[in-house]
Amino acid sequence: MRWEQVFKGRDVLSILDFTREELEELFSETDRMLSDPARYRGELSGYILATAFFEPSTRTRLSFQTAMLRLGGSYIDLGELERSSVAKGENFADTIRMLDSYADVIVVRHRLEGAARYAAEIAEAPVVNAGDGRKHHPTQAMLDLYTVRSAKGRIDGLTYGVLGDLRFGRAAASFILALSVYRPRKVYLISPQLLRARQEVLEALERAGVSYEEVSDLDSVLPELDVLYVTRIQKERFPDPAEYEKVRGSYVVTARALATAKEDLIVMHPLPRVDEIAPDVDSTKRAYYFKQAELGVWVRMALLRLILKG
Amino acid sequence: MRWEQVFKGRDVLSILDFTREELEELFSETDRMLSDPARYRGELSGYILATAFFEPSTRTRLSFQTAMLRLGGSYIDLGELERSSVAKGENFADTIRMLDSYADVIVVRHRLEGAARYAAEIAEAPVVNAGDGRKHHPTQAMLDLYTVRSAKGRIDGLTYGVLGDLRFGRAAASFILALSVYRPRKVYLISPQLLRARQEVLEALERAGVSYEEVSDLDSVLPELDVLYVTRIQKERFPDPAEYEKVRGSYVVTARALATAKEDLIVMHPLPRVDEIAPDVDSTKRAYYFKQAELGVWVRMALLRLILKG
Amino acid sequence: MRWEQVFKGRDVLSILDFTREELEELFSETDRMLSDPARYRGELSGYILATAFFEPSTRTRLSFQTAMLRLGGSYIDLGELERSSVAKGENFADTIRMLDSYADVIVVRHRLEGAARYAAEIAEAPVVNAGDGRKHHPTQAMLDLYTVRSAKGRIDGLTYGVLGDLRFGRAAASFILALSVYRPRKVYLISPQLLRARQEVLEALERAGVSYEEVSDLDSVLPELDVLYVTRIQKERFPDPAEYEKVRGSYVVTARALATAKEDLIVMHPLPRVDEIAPDVDSTKRAYYFKQAELGVWVRMALLRLILKG
Repeated sequence: MRWEQVFKGRDVLSILDFTREELEELFSETDRMLSDPARYRGELSGYILATAFFEPSTRTRLSFQTAMLRLGGSYIDLGELERSSVAKGENFADTIRMLDSYADVIVVRHRLEGAARYAAEIAEAPVVNAGDGRKHHPTQAMLDLYTVRSAKGRIDGLTYGVLGDLRFGRAAASFILALSVYRPRKVYLISPQLLRARQEVLEALERAGVSYEEVSDLDSVLPELDVLYVTRIQKERFPDPAEYEKVRGSYVVTARALATAKEDLIVMHPLPRVDEIAPDVDSTKRAYYFKQAELGVWVRMALLRLILKG
Repeated sequence: MRWEQVFKGRDVLSILDFTREELEELFSETDRMLSDPARYRGELSGYILATAFFEPSTRTRLSFQTAMLRLGGSYIDLGELERSSVAKGENFADTIRMLDSYADVIVVRHRLEGAARYAAEIAEAPVVNAGDGRKHHPTQAMLDLYTVRSAKGRIDGLTYGVLGDLRFGRAAASFILALSVYRPRKVYLISPQLLRARQEVLEALERAGVSYEEVSDLDSVLPELDVLYVTRIQKERFPDPAEYEKVRGSYVVTARALATAKEDLIVMHPLPRVDEIAPDVDSTKRAYYFKQAELGVWVRMALLRLILKG
Repeated sequence: MRWEQVFKGRDVLSILDFTREELEELFSETDRMLSDPARYRGELSGYILATAFFEPSTRTRLSFQTAMLRLGGSYIDLGELERSSVAKGENFADTIRMLDSYADVIVVRHRLEGAARYAAEIAEAPVVNAGDGRKHHPTQAMLDLYTVRSAKGRIDGLTYGVLGDLRFGRAAASFILALSVYRPRKVYLISPQLLRARQEVLEALERAGVSYEEVSDLDSVLPELDVLYVTRIQKERFPDPAEYEKVRGSYVVTARALATAKEDLIVMHPLPRVDEIAPDVDSTKRAYYFKQAELGVWVRMALLRLILKG
């Protein structure tokens, strides 16, 4: 297989569009960059990335911009919605067409599922989905997998817990889909009844033959876990605030709550967090969420290089 | 004539400040860049452009920033008005002075006519008017002319229709002024009575001896046109909304409405559009508005190079 | 002393953290850059600066971004608070951690005193305080001192007047602290009773043995001054608006008011100004505030080079 043909000009819309082999190549490229960053410094010199965040996300936006800068490229930013032509009533398609004539790669985030795919149909330049709808955020999934691989040396054969809002949380859903590309030993989906994963996410696990179980409680499964992926539960999801207060405590991860966990459990989080991981976890060797954000820039560097230059 | 002396350090405030010969040199420079972009890649390395948009415009702002990046330069952006020192009460003149000490060229957009000229009086760096008041947007006019020249091989001798809000629409007025620098066969000014072009715009055509006619209806003149320049009509311009609804239909350009047009009519639009050009026109070979936006970056690249380096 | 050891990786939190010798080295570095800018053009190529302004300031933000660009570096910007993850409830510490994993140096502005120091404790990258709380804005103080040194050839032995809101104005307090590192002949602190300098600022002068005097009136001390540092008085500081109107006139600097000043008095201002310096001063040779802003970029260039490369 010629990797150049596989990646060059490719849109990145869903983690499910990538085979295990393609992801491995991405991770190898990330390894190469991490081990010799100087070699890649001017790699994307002359290339322009456009960030078009129709839904705000500082972390992801800056991660892509940083990735581009580190490779010698540059960026333009669509900016605030209120400021942009969107305020004059310009339609999404025309905005994407504009960015397509300005930039070499377009990074899109949008509230609506399918927005990135639609953008990719319009644009000649590759489009990277930085999150749309309820379940796709492929570069988050890529960096999540890469973080596991870095910490554990492998992705297969581990027991995963994915905790929090699995219904509306995009990063969680995207990570679960990503696991379906690999062979975990088991995946525990840990959430209140109300926030269980959507049918189509579960089906991806089933199709892939991944063993999973939906549970409401972290404590009972914690001792089995190798990886705990935490996401936020938004109060607003609960029709009754009292209902929220009732479950809230069960989903806050503290150093004490982790006492029964395996010695080498790692705790991940797509960030930003509010209070779902207590600060006392930060200084433990289990805390991998900051490392995860740091590795995210490198995975995006590798991805941008591959889709822009092959 | 030494072009360096003509362009270097020059402010770009109104299309009427430029002679036909100067515009031709700008277009030749654009041609050169388009035919050998690699040669110009580091051309403005070390130069900084400041965008100061006191009235928002994503499209124009990104077009200038992209132009600068493609030539190896970089940009700073004043940002949102609410965010900027303007919110602390800083006056326009001091803001321009600040940008003048930071940047090598300043791109200004402002609601008030004359703002760019005032900025140019203050700043030592060249100032580019990215739109001020009701009629000046010279780089839009430059890219509009260049688009016609690209599509038709010439600007003289053609029949133009300029459609929409000719009274308050800055791009339309600026394009009409630009035509006065050339020798069109005829210019039709197509608009509702209420939105006719201003006296000073008509006078520019008269002084230049350009034949023009004001009409209310596209259909009657369409078959004669080589170029149809469409702009938006804002509902808010009409004291009576019913009045607007009455005329609205006559100014929406659809593929069907264009049936009686010349085979090689081109349709232009400064963008963003709302609904004044139907999407079914987009895929016809007449649609030149996306091409126009794309060429805009190149014309601005050429202009920036000329005013920064001569 | 090895300057590399002194500066490399250093946080810049308060002007009081710097010795006179260190400031002199910074100013010498600034001199070197001003005399041969071309030599430094690619100096910070590959380095990324992050601007994190939790309180808006266009002038300071753009000054740092420009400094970075002129040395061949690049920047990322946290952007509007509303837009950023802060809106999702992300805490300050996590935001700083994120920027730390993206950038090589972090520039922070925050309403609360101590925010920059807290950021510095969290981040491995050097943190530059671009203003926090009521009295620290060290790079403003550095550029203020450098401006005096440029205009007068020295900082010691001069008589200074610091005018305006010395209680809530961060730049004024920071400048007074900076003077305590040198040996002024005398410092007049000129303000309404209500807006006198805070105790800890006065104590810094006392500890340093700097002779100072608090006065309410500019006129009486003006003839003695070599440097007049003007800052704004905000109406909102006065419980009674009538009280403000009463004092207002005494603190507006006009060309006429300066008639009794020394021939070579220089007038400085951190900018932006509202109406505390009349425009008729701008064209006099006393006006140093625009020069001050211009030199600010150079001082920041020198500082960034020193803390990033030693």
